[in-house]
Amino acid sequence: MAFTGKQLTTQLDADGTLTVQLNDQTWDDPKPGQVLIQVEATPINPSDLGLLFASADTDTAVYSPGKVVAKMPENATRAMKARHGMPMPAGNEAAGIVVAAGEGCEHLMGKRIACVPGTAYGSYAYADPNMGFEVQDGVTAEQAASSFVNPMTALGFVETMKLEGYTGIVHAAAASNLGQMLLKICLEDGIPLVNVVRSDAQVKLLKDLGATHVLNMTDADYMPKLIDAIAETKAMIGFDPIGGGTVASQFLTAMEAAASRGAAFSRYGSNAAKKVCIYGALDLGPTILNRAFGLTWDLSGWLLTPFMMKAGPEVVGRMRARVMKDLTTTFASHYAKKGTLEDMLTKDAVAMYNARRTGEKYLVTPHG
Amino acid sequence: MAFTGKQLTTQLDADGTLTVQLNDQTWDDPKPGQVLIQVEATPINPSDLGLLFASADTDTAVYSPGKVVAKMPENATRAMKARHGMPMPAGNEAAGIVVAAGEGCEHLMGKRIACVPGTAYGSYAYADPNMGFEVQDGVTAEQAASSFVNPMTALGFVETMKLEGYTGIVHAAAASNLGQMLLKICLEDGIPLVNVVRSDAQVKLLKDLGATHVLNMTDADYMPKLIDAIAETKAMIGFDPIGGGTVASQFLTAMEAAASRGAAFSRYGSNAAKKVCIYGALDLGPTILNRAFGLTWDLSGWLLTPFMMKAGPEVVGRMRARVMKDLTTTFASHYAKKGTLEDMLTKDAVAMYNARRTGEKYLVTPHG
Repeated sequence: MAFTGKQLTTQLDADGTLTVQLNDQTWDDPKPGQVLIQVEATPINPSDLGLLFASADTDTAVYSPGKVVAKMPENATRAMKARHGMPMPAGNEAAGIVVAAGEGCEHLMGKRIACVPGTAYGSYAYADPNMGFEVQDGVTAEQAASSFVNPMTALGFVETMKLEGYTGIVHAAAASNLGQMLLKICLEDGIPLVNVVRSDAQVKLLKDLGATHVLNMTDADYMPKLIDAIAETKAMIGFDPIGGGTVASQFLTAMEAAASRGAAFSRYGSNAAKKVCIYGALDLGPTILNRAFGLTWDLSGWLLTPFMMKAGPEVVGRMRARVMKDLTTTFASHYAKKGTLEDMLTKDAVAMYNARRTGEKYLVTPHG
Repeated sequence: MAFTGKQLTTQLDADGTLTVQLNDQTWDDPKPGQVLIQVEATPINPSDLGLLFASADTDTAVYSPGKVVAKMPENATRAMKARHGMPMPAGNEAAGIVVAAGEGCEHLMGKRIACVPGTAYGSYAYADPNMGFEVQDGVTAEQAASSFVNPMTALGFVETMKLEGYTGIVHAAAASNLGQMLLKICLEDGIPLVNVVRSDAQVKLLKDLGATHVLNMTDADYMPKLIDAIAETKAMIGFDPIGGGTVASQFLTAMEAAASRGAAFSRYGSNAAKKVCIYGALDLGPTILNRAFGLTWDLSGWLLTPFMMKAGPEVVGRMRARVMKDLTTTFASHYAKKGTLEDMLTKDAVAMYNARRTGEKYLVTPHG
């Protein structure tokens, strides 16, 4: 039995033309160990946008029904040479109803699952049930759509903290969906968390959720406050989705200042371990490190999949079980706007979700 | 019995005045487990300069016999608040004759040792014999003066490579004394090494020493050549004493390009581990990361003492034994100029060694 519908693809050509469009597609029976879902709901995460539009100019793009043609900057075009000329599907995660099941997955027929197809921007998608889970009765597709990327990343931060011997976290852009989840986890588990945001409204949002330490990085006294908060919480590992600019440098500088408070001068800085993980690129500009933090420090890229491979099945199983249990509470996501596959390719929609503004997330519902 | 002589100190005051001067001093009997050496020879390493002059302006300083008074920039003065008003001795390593021995060290009386006093710019210095070693007969003080910082750092890079699971090294400013040692070690041990330098003369110097891969970073085709060399050697850990600018960023970018050669496009970059360790600050400016290297990468500060603590006594013992054995061959140091404590505080001498030019090292011989 075959299913027909639309599949979104994004293609970058060598001349810098980026074409994001819907194509007619047919889905055949899934392979053994796989299922086919009718995609009910799939979010657009920052991690999807890197593939979908990357740094293409969506303001000057040409929009027609089901199609966007934009121009990619030259250096980005060159850097992504490996994808030239290839129509690539997108959409990391989704919730949907199993409409066909491969060998060994028959028990899932007709069930709603949360999963990570990587091709979720389509009418249907193949998925590996081992990477997802069956959604409990009464949980809607909208509630289950974002059950992987943000929840597992937030839990991954806490596990990274533990694995590397730290006892508290500093988080940038902390008012995001992900940041709110991290806050709830830390409150539940009694983990000290320093939340760094960009506006007083975001300070209020997180305070209302119960946060103790929320700092506005645009305040004139941000740095002394950050040093105080780190000295108090011993939060010596940071997570930064911004990437560009001096966010990570400021974290490390404040950690060093907190660690060497009251200590004798050392030309090499303190021996206290301090680390920042960059896990996104909300600012595509260069990372600037002022290196006013001695010689004992680490800065790393952080990505969910390699982390899960390193952490191993026991840790990952524990993380997933917690997501299933608390999907509609701790791990609830909020969407500023919803639309079909056609809607998501309109100028208004692209302008909204490609701005990557904190709290303004788009949910795609292919079947309306 | 007491010994008298001169001791250099460096003092930074809150108003930004840096005073480096010689003071009269008396050395009493060493404590148990310690020895007192008459300092014969002590090098000025880049790691000493961070304390000695830091970023003070030595061009406009006032020089008088045995005294230099310079101005420190405001931000640096503020950053080094913990040392304000304190006269600090300097000089990491030295060779000297044991003139007094504390309890348990009597067997060393009259012997020449290589050691790490931390106060070596003086007529005499206390030292812990466990952190140094007795020099073999026929080895001069000049030959033994630099037997700790550079040799142990070069060996430390190789041990770091092994501990972290890498199999080849990229090294910046590779024509330095340290770089030449690293090259000799890698040649002896069959470890792939990519040497990065700044001039054709340095390329020739390292080629003459037997290097296979030597790249001039000022060449127009530096990046493609670096990618080729890393692809060939699988050198996925780099060491960078420059710190400022884009050296580390270029290393990570080239490692990523080499790792993803021929691979399918991934929006997150390759999963290949890649790391750069910044171990100095020849360029005090900010580190600029262009982050064109996916999300699987590490950038860390690297410092000898914490590394030795992490590596443990067995590894460190093995490193030290190798230094003792090969002190006049693999670990030989060269000096462009020599002088007394008074000489090292003249304008000409400071201008020379504070320029931190590759291959232009100063040796202090307090007793002429």
